[in-house]
Amino acid sequence: MKVDGKEMRPIWLNNDNPLEVLVIDQRMLPHELVIVALKGVDDTLDAIREMFVRGAPLIGATGAWGVYLACINAPGGQITDVWLQGEAERLKSSRPTAVNLAWAVDRMMACLASVQGDVHRVRAARKEAELIADEEAENCRQIGVFGVSLIEEISRRKQGETVNILTHCNAGWLACVDYGTATAPIYEAFNRGIDVHVWVDETRPLNQGARLTAWELGKHGVAHTVIADNAGGHLMQHGQVDLVITGTDRTTWTGDVANKIGTYLKALAARDNGIPFWVALPSSTFDWEMDDGVKEIPIEVRNPDEIRYVQGQVAGKTVQVLVPPASSACENHAFDVTPARLVTGFITERGLCAASREGVLGLFPEKGKEAPCN
Amino acid sequence: MKVDGKEMRPIWLNNDNPLEVLVIDQRMLPHELVIVALKGVDDTLDAIREMFVRGAPLIGATGAWGVYLACINAPGGQITDVWLQGEAERLKSSRPTAVNLAWAVDRMMACLASVQGDVHRVRAARKEAELIADEEAENCRQIGVFGVSLIEEISRRKQGETVNILTHCNAGWLACVDYGTATAPIYEAFNRGIDVHVWVDETRPLNQGARLTAWELGKHGVAHTVIADNAGGHLMQHGQVDLVITGTDRTTWTGDVANKIGTYLKALAARDNGIPFWVALPSSTFDWEMDDGVKEIPIEVRNPDEIRYVQGQVAGKTVQVLVPPASSACENHAFDVTPARLVTGFITERGLCAASREGVLGLFPEKGKEAPCN
Repeated sequence: MKVDGKEMRPIWLNNDNPLEVLVIDQRMLPHELVIVALKGVDDTLDAIREMFVRGAPLIGATGAWGVYLACINAPGGQITDVWLQGEAERLKSSRPTAVNLAWAVDRMMACLASVQGDVHRVRAARKEAELIADEEAENCRQIGVFGVSLIEEISRRKQGETVNILTHCNAGWLACVDYGTATAPIYEAFNRGIDVHVWVDETRPLNQGARLTAWELGKHGVAHTVIADNAGGHLMQHGQVDLVITGTDRTTWTGDVANKIGTYLKALAARDNGIPFWVALPSSTFDWEMDDGVKEIPIEVRNPDEIRYVQGQVAGKTVQVLVPPASSACENHAFDVTPARLVTGFITERGLCAASREGVLGLFPEKGKEAPCN
Repeated sequence: MKVDGKEMRPIWLNNDNPLEVLVIDQRMLPHELVIVALKGVDDTLDAIREMFVRGAPLIGATGAWGVYLACINAPGGQITDVWLQGEAERLKSSRPTAVNLAWAVDRMMACLASVQGDVHRVRAARKEAELIADEEAENCRQIGVFGVSLIEEISRRKQGETVNILTHCNAGWLACVDYGTATAPIYEAFNRGIDVHVWVDETRPLNQGARLTAWELGKHGVAHTVIADNAGGHLMQHGQVDLVITGTDRTTWTGDVANKIGTYLKALAARDNGIPFWVALPSSTFDWEMDDGVKEIPIEVRNPDEIRYVQGQVAGKTVQVLVPPASSACENHAFDVTPARLVTGFITERGLCAASREGVLGLFPEKGKEAPCN
């Protein structure tokens, strides 16, 4: 998508130096646009763990590029299977919740398994990583095309009055490779001239909504208002939300949705007020193994300092301020799981479906399997 | 309650100068303990609007002291009814949601109506304001005595294992005159040696949980953990919350609860997970006129800069940092209303009751009136 008129993605191979993968350091947005070069797997791990990059599809793409960086940094230039396996494991373990990471790294490894020779492996890794990134971008574009129908329908029903959409965290192009997941239908609606307005949950603790979603939407010209995470229920009670769309870090094939902590609370409020709650995702975010998301999806517990300190700008400088007493304990669960029963449906690159086994397998029949005995 | 071993309240008449009412400037906590002198109604209005003082019972007590300050600042020392009425109206309009403010100011006016003579009026105003403050403190003490039974019961059921209580915002002694409302049963349980641990919602936008509740609990030695407002649902899903207790800024006699924005979301999560959700309040917080809280209680919309800027400490200084893009709109609803159907019950100075007309009138029969025709 565009930043000040210039086409941009959150990750790309450095045209001037193919030994470097470039990423936006998203920790510094919205006040500074900093580009960082990843030169090896260690850099890539840092970038994923420290959240220079975040968002399930982008974490996947970064993992894919990480395998490419593993190839070009193999000791003595010899890309052995043992070396690759070790680096792949390191990459896959860098964050536990997003399933796209393992998906992308496994896909890279499957591709490289059939390629012999160091030069060929580097070339294949580069091509596959580019393919994964481009496919994720195309998937998001398709999510936009399918999802916009939901917004168009509400716009018609409201006779052209503003459609108010609430989103949580950042599932925009910054979280993906392009277009975004939750934002793709919004950008598509905006581009089609539909009057849309987005309620942007600030999304504590890392404020990805206030920092990233607000920045993205603003750069594209989409009307939006930043609100405290606490406010969504009140807005829904008073008819100010027509539709909720979020992204997801992992969604079970049975319909349970792991997403940024707090998503579950918004789903409850949407249900209580009869407001549709949709989740947008590329199929790479589906977990085809797990049946019970609440019980099974590993929820990352991150550094409590992310609760203690809030980053922002003062006098032109980006700083972090301590909010609670320094002596108070803090706890930082990064995700929660919204049970399928609260989700109206999924917006995928193949179309819309219900948040259920039947719905998901209807769109992805090749993943069909026997329902487990209960 | 105690601060570093010294007994303290959030408001008191200056012993050395009865022309001043002293308050803690709660905006500066937890990193600085600043005491501010209120010398007249203008100071009092500032202190209420700018939230040097906040919390329904404390806003009420501050309003009462504001009437005293109006008396001692009457033009030419003549405390006319017209002057008093004008100052009372100014005080009552300073914040719209907390019903205690109007309650306390009206009580002061009713008291002064029967007193003639400027000197007598000053004396009566001082006595009545002190009485209101002391009664509110005593009410909170009683709330603790009644509410502790809920915690004791859970502690028994868990065979002495830690009782985990979630609270939102600050309904502690800082919000009241002493003991707090939501915290009163917690302090009482702690003092009785029950193993309690409090999940403290940070409570954006003004972080009264992270700044004030954490500070209070820490000073008293109560185990607590600060969490993002987004986290409560996840903790409830995973059995880590036994009980929710919040305060309220206004509660209809029919059981609808206005409280800090985000309370409604926690009530929904508590309901979804079968966790009791109790609201602690002195009877001065009941609105005996309104029937439908969601439709009728005025919800204050505050300055959007409270969303944009987060206050904290960096390098020993308290500063405010800008989080979202400066160009993004923000909206700041200060409260929401939790419908009675989501509230397990009320903890009042007269005991526990259901969140319903019948429950409330059972405890406060003198307020009995015909149920309105539907």
